[in-house]
Parts: sequence; structure tokens; C-alpha cells
Amino acid sequence: MARPVKVGVLGAGIVGSGVISVLARKGDRIAQTLGARIEVSRILVRDVTRQRDASIHRGLLTTDAEAILDDPEIAVVVELLGGEEPARTYIERALSAGKHVVTANKEVIAKHGYELLQIADRHRVNLFFEASVGGGIPIIRVVRRDLVANDISQIQAIINGTTNFILTAMADGREYADALAEAQRLGYAEADPRNDVEATDAAYKLSILTTLAFRADVRPERIHRIGITDLAEKDFRYASEMGYVVRLVATARLVDGVIEANVHPTLLPRDHHLASVNGVFNAVLIDGDEVDKLVLYGRGAGAQPTSSAVLADLCAIVADIVAGVAQRVDFPATSPPVRAFGETTARFYLRLSVADEPGVLAQIARALGDSGISIASCIQKESDEEARVAEIVIMTHTARQSAMTEALQKILHLSCTRQVSASIRVDR
Amino acid sequence: MARPVKVGVLGAGIVGSGVISVLARKGDRIAQTLGARIEVSRILVRDVTRQRDASIHRGLLTTDAEAILDDPEIAVVVELLGGEEPARTYIERALSAGKHVVTANKEVIAKHGYELLQIADRHRVNLFFEASVGGGIPIIRVVRRDLVANDISQIQAIINGTTNFILTAMADGREYADALAEAQRLGYAEADPRNDVEATDAAYKLSILTTLAFRADVRPERIHRIGITDLAEKDFRYASEMGYVVRLVATARLVDGVIEANVHPTLLPRDHHLASVNGVFNAVLIDGDEVDKLVLYGRGAGAQPTSSAVLADLCAIVADIVAGVAQRVDFPATSPPVRAFGETTARFYLRLSVADEPGVLAQIARALGDSGISIASCIQKESDEEARVAEIVIMTHTARQSAMTEALQKILHLSCTRQVSASIRVDR
Repeated sequence: MARPVKVGVLGAGIVGSGVISVLARKGDRIAQTLGARIEVSRILVRDVTRQRDASIHRGLLTTDAEAILDDPEIAVVVELLGGEEPARTYIERALSAGKHVVTANKEVIAKHGYELLQIADRHRVNLFFEASVGGGIPIIRVVRRDLVANDISQIQAIINGTTNFILTAMADGREYADALAEAQRLGYAEADPRNDVEATDAAYKLSILTTLAFRADVRPERIHRIGITDLAEKDFRYASEMGYVVRLVATARLVDGVIEANVHPTLLPRDHHLASVNGVFNAVLIDGDEVDKLVLYGRGAGAQPTSSAVLADLCAIVADIVAGVAQRVDFPATSPPVRAFGETTARFYLRLSVADEPGVLAQIARALGDSGISIASCIQKESDEEARVAEIVIMTHTARQSAMTEALQKILHLSCTRQVSASIRVDR
Repeated sequence: MARPVKVGVLGAGIVGSGVISVLARKGDRIAQTLGARIEVSRILVRDVTRQRDASIHRGLLTTDAEAILDDPEIAVVVELLGGEEPARTYIERALSAGKHVVTANKEVIAKHGYELLQIADRHRVNLFFEASVGGGIPIIRVVRRDLVANDISQIQAIINGTTNFILTAMADGREYADALAEAQRLGYAEADPRNDVEATDAAYKLSILTTLAFRADVRPERIHRIGITDLAEKDFRYASEMGYVVRLVATARLVDGVIEANVHPTLLPRDHHLASVNGVFNAVLIDGDEVDKLVLYGRGAGAQPTSSAVLADLCAIVADIVAGVAQRVDFPATSPPVRAFGETTARFYLRLSVADEPGVLAQIARALGDSGISIASCIQKESDEEARVAEIVIMTHTARQSAMTEALQKILHLSCTRQVSASIRVDR
């Protein structure tokens, strides 16, 4: 009964191998559900001679992308190469040739998704990218489809497992370099960790979520991002004393018709829905006007969770092929403006090294006050009597980011200031 | 551009009114997404003269179900009457007339879903029931579709908000009767709360989840359920001292090809994914072989979250109608056997009132040991010297339920035993 749907796979790295392996093991059951068998008919690799998983038949390997993109028999292309090019070009060519595309490529979707969705729409094929955000967590489909009745006001997410692993380790008393080294040793961080620790990866993912949640064209370059490289273990302790945890939070919200989308280390109150997300796990908190708060939590990376998401997309496409539809893709229709990071507001946690002498706090308070920022609490944490240096921790009331930037400039130029050791936004 | 799809709504209670109100407010945006306008063309009510929400046009009201079920113009029926009959009959008639059906009715789906899905399949229409479990949490669709690549080994869920509210209050020091009264005052519990507190509602929902997750025909009567009516505040304190919280947990798992599905108060370790689910919120923890652990958390009841789920179903159907498909419904194909409750295993928390005299613990331990149950820890909590009664709390190692039932019978007949005050299963 199960007629085959031919699929070309671009890339046989850990995710590609995972997808092919699941199809080899569970193909019969999946075919029964779908009424069609998914047949991997060609796999693009760089090196056909390399040793691979037993489920990958050598005869299907090719180093020639055209063998897939130009094969009229192939109905669906699964792009798992990663990186911007040639992935973007291949996706565009596949869509233009009337093939459905499934991709896990956050960079391509974040940077070019808007145009690619329009190309898919013109050729009446689907471009699905569930695996591009949150690994095995079905966040894309939940936002696109299950929350159709909702106006979403905010998405807050921990969507980078590498940094969350490092921050969890720092909460346990490790310094950044030490925690990063452990993440690298365990395979959670790459040798060059910048893409993760500088929040580029999280910004790509937030760009995708923002585009879907607000039907807005918000490219990654419009998302302000602050990485975790400057965080000190000490701030985790001080934050904990005040009832907070430190997480790299990606936030998108609609405030008075304007989008705010940014990624930065954030102090979250301990009872916040994302505060208990530890290690490499990811979670997304969505505020919808009908559902109220919805949280999805799971593994945001790894071969198996990512394969699970790729296969959900692939099966959805095959089910539509069986039913005889090329489902129309709805692409963003409106695009609300985006608020510059400087114009956003937050409470701030500050840690300053200052001269241990009378009148210093007054000078700091004046500098903040001159920029319209008021202090909610202030604690002198430590002092080094010999060096005559004291450390003070300040929690502010809500302030504009640009005012804080201005105030910190003024504070830096005070003669009493030794160092601005930390400035971290606090979840409202 | 937006051609109308006519919908008949059965029932205009709080969910029905919610659905109609959302369509009135957001119909334009939804029509733009779907390429079709959802037009509520008839609403079945008991009393057409009653005062209702402004979005409900009096001219659409009818007390005659035939006016909807026999109207060939109506493509989709939304059943929001609740209760077994006449809801089941109406759903069957609508499906048999070639109409798609969306329902929030957990009782009908749990008891008759298997047959109704087959009827839907024969008439090539959809029967969707996202709102029947977990309110605004898209659990049905995630299990049916997003986890298609996964073999699910276990689902654990807090799926009754009323009982979770009561248990959360009891953890704060309230006794059951007091917590129930507050739930009733706040509208979270009904005047007759039995359906919730005796775990009938949770058993319906677990029956649906079990059927979908394991493609098994597990009716509610095969789910062993223990309610929360016998829980004492004291056990929450003792559990807390040992690092546990008490929750009404619905669990379905596949162990050696046999299904175990039951609902009962459970001691969860404080770091369990469901342990921080408080108040009326619901959460579902799914273990899939590819995704590992996935948690969905949100509001499990209420007009708005339930409407959100009903509308997600309705929009999915309308999108298919626009695309020209009556999507085939896949219904359970296999049915693994179900393990009797007595044959399942767990650790147990026991609280016993015993005579405060030497040798008592030895007698208890022997009674347990004779049934093959060993004690992991034992604490004497309190004693009333005047009455010469002591209270002991025992945590056992893993034991078979039938062995525990047998041992408790023996313990009850010991001359030293005053009362078996609590016997609660502990999450493994």
C-alpha cells in the first residue's frame, strides 16, 4: 500500500546520519501512519569514501548537489549542511524546482527565511524548519499553528544549551574559563566557542521566533546581543543572595506596537518559569492572550532531538503529498517597527569597584540620578583595606538602556571609580 | 478572497462563548492566515431567551440539534456540550453526515474515541480533540504529530487543575477540607467535586493520552485511580522533610511491552520536572527515545485556554478544507496489553499509628518482610504518651502493589496497629 516518496538529504553529519538511521529503524511504522514510505534516494556528502553508520548505503552517496537538486523524482530535500552557503543556494534551487524543503539551518532561516518563504509560496511548496530552534522542542509548529487564536505579547527563551551549561556550572561556583573548558571537554562547546558564547546562535533563533510570533521581518542584525564572556562567578553568588539566577535569555516582546528583541545575560527571579532550566536543556515561555503562559522544555540540541524535529517536518510534508496538497506557506504579512536597544528599559544589577573613602556612594548615586536612574538597593559587599578599594552592588529601578549607558560612562570617569565590574539586566 | 466555511457550534457555555467571541474579534486575521473565513452559522443552546455575550447573535441560536446536524452547508461541528450524552450521539451523527468534528469532550473521547475515530476514518473526515486534555497546552498534537519519530516510553502528567490547586494549598499547611472549600470559593472546584477529587477527570484524560502515545485501546475503566480525598496535611510536611512534594500524577508507561496506566497521589522528588507545577497549572512530561524528556506546561482549563485549543483544531480543519483534503485520521492500530494495578511496582510512603511499646517496629517490619517488602527508612515522628500511641513513617524499597496491599492487611490485623494513616506511592 505504501508508495514511496523520494527524499534527497544534503549532509550526512551527526543530524543527517541520525535522520537516516531513524528512517531505517522505524520506516515501517512511519509508513503505516503516513500511508507512504519515505525513501532516502540520494545523500550529498563531501567524501564518499569515509566510514559511516551502517544505515547509510554507500550507493546513495554523491558529492554532486545537482544529482539531488535536478532529480525530478525527488520530492523533498532535507538540508542539513549548516552554515550560510552553499546551504542557502541549495534551498532556493530546491524550492524553485518545486521541491519541498526541510532544514535545521538557523543561520539561513534567520538571515534569508523571509525571502525563502516567499519563494516557497510562489512555487506552492513547503519550507519547514522546526529543527532550527530548540532541537526536539516543537516550538515552531506550536507558535505557527497551535497558537493561531492567540495574540502573542512576549516570548522569553533559553535557546542555547552551551551557554546554559556554562552558566549552570558558574552558579555552582566555577569561573567562566573553567566552565567553558568543561563544556568543551564534554562536547557541548566547540573549540572556537564564539558563535555560542557571544550569543550569535541565540540571536539567529530569536530572529526566527520573533518573525513567526509577530509576523515581523526581524533579521539577526536587528537583535541586540550581549554574550556571557564577561560574567564573573562572583555575580552569580551576589545574584543568588538577592534571590536571582543568571541566564542568557532571548526575549522578544511587543510593547505599544513596537517590537523589542534582544539576547543578553539576565537576572531571573528564582520562581521565574525559566529559572530552573539547567545544563544543556532549553525552554521557551510564551505569553498568549488566550492561553496565558505556556512553557515548552526539552533538549535543544543533539543528533537525536534534532532528528526528531526534522522527521516531524518531513512526515508532515509526506502526509500532505499523500493527501494531494502542496500546503500553502503563510509568510509574515505585517512588520511592526523594532525598538532600538538603547530605547528599551530594564532594571539593572551593577557591581562597581570604588575607592573605599567617604562620599563615594553619593557620587555614584548622583551620576545615576543625573541620568534619571534611581537606586532600589545598594550593598557594600567587600573591601580590600590595604588597597583601599570597596566593592558595591547596586540594584536599580527600571531605567532606559541609553540612560544606563550614559550613567556608566559618567561613573567610569569619576575619580573614585576603579572598575565597572558588572552591569546585567534584570527581568522585570 | 476569503470564502466562508460554515461551522455549527453545539453549546454556548463558557467555552462555546469564548470560541465565538475570539472568532468575532480575530476573525479577519485568522481568515487572512487560512485563506477562508470561519462563519459560525448556527449555535445549539438550551434556552434561546437567555442573556448572552454580545458576540453571539440571537438569530443564530437554535434549540434543535437537527438544524445543525442535518444542514448540508455546515462543514464542521464544534461540540462543546460536555457530558456523555447527547454529545456522543451528536458527534457520531455529524461524522456520519461527512462533517468534521472538533470537541473538548474528554468523557466522550475517553470512552468512545476509538469507535468515533473509526467512523471519522470511514467518512474521511477529521475528529479533533486537542481541548480534551490539558486545556491550552497543545499536548494531543505534539504526541500525534511532532513526536512521530519517537517511541514513547512514558507520559507523566498533572492534568487536573482542581486537585493540583488543593494539593498546592495543602503543601502550604491547609487541611483537605479547607483547601477544597477555597477551591470552590474561587470557582476552581464544583459544588460536587467528586469528578475531580476522585480522579475521574484525570483518568479520562490519561486514557486519551495513553491511547495516542501507545496506539492502544485503554478505556478509562482500565485505569486504576486513587483520589486525593484521604490525604492529610501532615503527610505533606513529612514528605517535604524527606525532599518530596505530593501531587496527583497520571502515569502511562510501556514496560516490557505491557502498558501501565494509573492515576494516584504520588510523592515526587523536589527536582522532578513536575514537582514545581503549582496551583491550577497543568504539565505533561513525555519520554521519547529520540527527544529524551519533553515538558509542556500551561493552563489546563478555563474558557480562554480551552478556546485556544478548540480554535487550533478548527483552523487546522479549515486549512485542509481550503487545500481540498479531508485528511485521513490515523487511529490506533495495535493494542498492547494493560498491566493490572496490583502487578505494578512502586516505592511506598507509609504512615502508621501504632502502640508505643517495645517490639512494635519488629512486628511491622516482619509483616512487610513476609510479603517481600523491605524498608528503606523509618522514622518515629510523634508519640502521644498519654494515649501510648506513636506515629511512624516508613519509606519502602520498590515493591509490587499487590504485595503492599497484602502486607497492609496483615499490619491492620496486628494488635499493635491503631491505624494505617497513609499509604502513598513514590515516584521511582
